[in-house]
Amino acid sequence: MTKEGKFELPALPAGYVLSSLEIEDYDNGALDVLAQLTTVGDVAREDFEKFLRLQTATEYNTMVIRNREHRVVGIATLLVETKLIHGFSKVGHIEDVAVDSQERGSNLGRYLVRYLCNLAMSLGCYKVILDCDVENVGFYKKCGLAERGIEMEYR
Amino acid sequence: MTKEGKFELPALPAGYVLSSLEIEDYDNGALDVLAQLTTVGDVAREDFEKFLRLQTATEYNTMVIRNREHRVVGIATLLVETKLIHGFSKVGHIEDVAVDSQERGSNLGRYLVRYLCNLAMSLGCYKVILDCDVENVGFYKKCGLAERGIEMEYR
Repeated sequence: MTKEGKFELPALPAGYVLSSLEIEDYDNGALDVLAQLTTVGDVAREDFEKFLRLQTATEYNTMVIRNREHRVVGIATLLVETKLIHGFSKVGHIEDVAVDSQERGSNLGRYLVRYLCNLAMSLGCYKVILDCDVENVGFYKKCGLAERGIEMEYR
Repeated sequence: MTKEGKFELPALPAGYVLSSLEIEDYDNGALDVLAQLTTVGDVAREDFEKFLRLQTATEYNTMVIRNREHRVVGIATLLVETKLIHGFSKVGHIEDVAVDSQERGSNLGRYLVRYLCNLAMSLGCYKVILDCDVENVGFYKKCGLAERGIEMEYR
């Protein structure tokens, strides 16, 4: 953490850029990277466009890292939830962090998680949370997060 | 679960009603019940009104149970998140489940959680998740949820 209470970000490889998700990423591998995380299924271009329309600084913030060839090699979303509690405050939810398997070890995942934590704080969130499998706890601890509670689910 | 894949709801005490959150609940104890869950702090009436404007069937759904005297005795929120994954699907997040301490044992908490699970499914969510402290896992299991993963946090 810096003195300003923000995470320092690891360096990105030369030529890699961080960007908000854009329509061109539909053809540039955004869904391929997510497919390495979980089932993506059939996402039509118009679904992708609908998702882009949800992207606002106060709700959804999906960030991508593109490599030198403009391929998406990392993606993660911050959802900002408004709460009645804690003085009408906000909580950031980090969702669907995925990094291309060819890029492991480049700190792209850590970059995205820390970037979204900083973004959440700058948007007024009093905390940032995410749910992960037990085997990913170590990665998120390295990112600077701490274990907090249990995720329950209903399907 | 019924044959339709929905939870059966426990009966509410006579005269108790389920309702969407309304402006009158600002004066009828909604914040008092939340204050039994966590710090609420200073929520102005205009903040409460802003929160009400977030309430739509596709995003925030805050439900309350009012008793015979129209006091709020239970409150819980379902936040519906749109995902790119799983075929442009949705995930329901249950947040801030609070029941008045005078009403424990009346199944109001179970009613709210199951109601919101059913609502999430009817809104097209492929799953519903929530985060809780270890000591509340038993309650949520009784509601019909299962342990899934670890909640990580950054403050």
